[in-house]
Amino acid sequence: MKEVKKLWEEVRELSLGNNSRVERLDSPPTPLQFLRDYVSQNKPCIINNANLDWPAFSLWTQHSYLSKTLSSSAVSVHLSPNGRADSVVGNPSSDSLFFASAHVERMPFDEALRLVSSSVDGKVVAYLQQQNDCFRSEYSVLSSDCDQHIPWATEALGCYPEAVNLWIGNQLSETSFHKDHYENLYAVVSGQKHFLLLPPTDVHRMYIRQYPAAHYSYFRDVGNFTLEVEKPVRYVPWCSVNPYPSLENREAEMAKFPLYFNGPKPFECTVNAGEILYLPSMWFHHVRQSPDDNGYTIAINYWYDMQFDIKYAYFNFLQSIYYKSPSPDQTLPEVEYEDSDE
Amino acid sequence: MKEVKKLWEEVRELSLGNNSRVERLDSPPTPLQFLRDYVSQNKPCIINNANLDWPAFSLWTQHSYLSKTLSSSAVSVHLSPNGRADSVVGNPSSDSLFFASAHVERMPFDEALRLVSSSVDGKVVAYLQQQNDCFRSEYSVLSSDCDQHIPWATEALGCYPEAVNLWIGNQLSETSFHKDHYENLYAVVSGQKHFLLLPPTDVHRMYIRQYPAAHYSYFRDVGNFTLEVEKPVRYVPWCSVNPYPSLENREAEMAKFPLYFNGPKPFECTVNAGEILYLPSMWFHHVRQSPDDNGYTIAINYWYDMQFDIKYAYFNFLQSIYYKSPSPDQTLPEVEYEDSDE
Repeated sequence: MKEVKKLWEEVRELSLGNNSRVERLDSPPTPLQFLRDYVSQNKPCIINNANLDWPAFSLWTQHSYLSKTLSSSAVSVHLSPNGRADSVVGNPSSDSLFFASAHVERMPFDEALRLVSSSVDGKVVAYLQQQNDCFRSEYSVLSSDCDQHIPWATEALGCYPEAVNLWIGNQLSETSFHKDHYENLYAVVSGQKHFLLLPPTDVHRMYIRQYPAAHYSYFRDVGNFTLEVEKPVRYVPWCSVNPYPSLENREAEMAKFPLYFNGPKPFECTVNAGEILYLPSMWFHHVRQSPDDNGYTIAINYWYDMQFDIKYAYFNFLQSIYYKSPSPDQTLPEVEYEDSDE
Repeated sequence: MKEVKKLWEEVRELSLGNNSRVERLDSPPTPLQFLRDYVSQNKPCIINNANLDWPAFSLWTQHSYLSKTLSSSAVSVHLSPNGRADSVVGNPSSDSLFFASAHVERMPFDEALRLVSSSVDGKVVAYLQQQNDCFRSEYSVLSSDCDQHIPWATEALGCYPEAVNLWIGNQLSETSFHKDHYENLYAVVSGQKHFLLLPPTDVHRMYIRQYPAAHYSYFRDVGNFTLEVEKPVRYVPWCSVNPYPSLENREAEMAKFPLYFNGPKPFECTVNAGEILYLPSMWFHHVRQSPDDNGYTIAINYWYDMQFDIKYAYFNFLQSIYYKSPSPDQTLPEVEYEDSDE
């Protein structure tokens, strides 16, 4: 439909800009500026100099500080064979695609961190994360190392964060395209996060399809993974697009997802240590990361409740309109999309 | 399309409420509250006690204050045979419908006000109004009688009003359904204003159609009007729905505009002297009024620039989707809709 394509263009021309760049602010916005110029407009921004005087910046990169402080803590670790958990994967034993969740295990922090370090050359990629407010539960001993909320965001949004999550991983962990029903303030403590962002208006470019849920299981003694499909079968709606296909798959992927690859470029940004990304509710995002000198990327994100207002109603309407796609994937049923990670 | 109807329902369920009532605030909101809870959500509200300590409330209702103060001012008056200028009317000499604009004349204020008073039993209805920032031009001698802007709105929206307009009329003047590309703060000084409001999501319920532009001309010596069609023909897109059809037309109108008459009720509110209506950008509104003891309704509205953001892009997308209507009017072309009055 030409109307949908016009919408992709118009939201860029009117509001987001045409250069695929995320606006950068040299200092934290006032609550009013943040609300008026970004949240209300559902428009991302990066705060370059977020004035975060967190002890975390120096402490967490010191050798052994985290291990010592968390020596008696058990934390949740996501394990996968390739760093791509919560994403669509093919099963080698069949032609089918599945939505594969990580093997999640709680273990002593020290052991978890060692797994992240050894990921680089091993067969298991570990990502310390759990999107259940883990910074205020599993990692509560670190609470004085950084702010419990982002003051200007809290004042603007009129509430404290619903969840604060800590992420410790390395360059092998990657988060596939998805969206969240939260206003997200994403602060990098060490290393870099690389985001691809698409506004909610571009929902049809994500090729959200139903995939059977599957889970990785890790067998530590033999050091390998199995992928097991949930029984009875449960379908998970998920974005089909991998924005970075391998060279040999590139042409096939571009032919399968032309609306993504031939449409307007996604907004692309790198968030450095000390910077905060405002990732607006309902925006699709894909995340990769670069480690610091110690081999880690460390970030904290603050999830604030979003408002389910006219913008959300418009989104649901847009999504409900079937977009005739030339992809063979269109035989899969299209349905409502769920909340998810990062 | 069932998707469009679902949108009408969802925006009410999620955000606006299902009871067709406009939220009332007992005191002015803070700028942050106003921005977060109303502007960002594109949701109307009435401020009951707007704390307006304007001399206007006592002065403008005093006998002869306005006439004396404006004795040397010329003001713009809109004249029509029935109080329904800027609306769709039938031409008695044909079956066609036209978009009829008022006869606009500048005259001494005193004479204009007399015309409003005599409207009630005469053949001409006068409405002192001009939406060109008239309060700060034609009526500038009244500037110290009320605020030049609404402080909490100015702070929230980050700018001063683009236009401030004064309205003096009586119960015969009525404004037909339309929308404006402004955030509107509508303050009643004397009498009452009665609004019907529909959110932008309901655009298809307005049956916006193209009507040939026509103008009333008033011939004072003989005391009658002619309606002249513009040559060459110029088409004006306008809402076709009259929410208050006469008893004999009621059934025919309901059959012609079923999406309006059978859909969710419009939001209905009366704004009293001392109250302010926040009328969000892009909302369709129909306005009637009741006079004070002197026979006048007096109001000032502040037009602030709106943000052309993702909400606006969504609206244009929605409007671009053809809604198959069972009305015979659908043979008229549907097109983009223009800015207009009130």
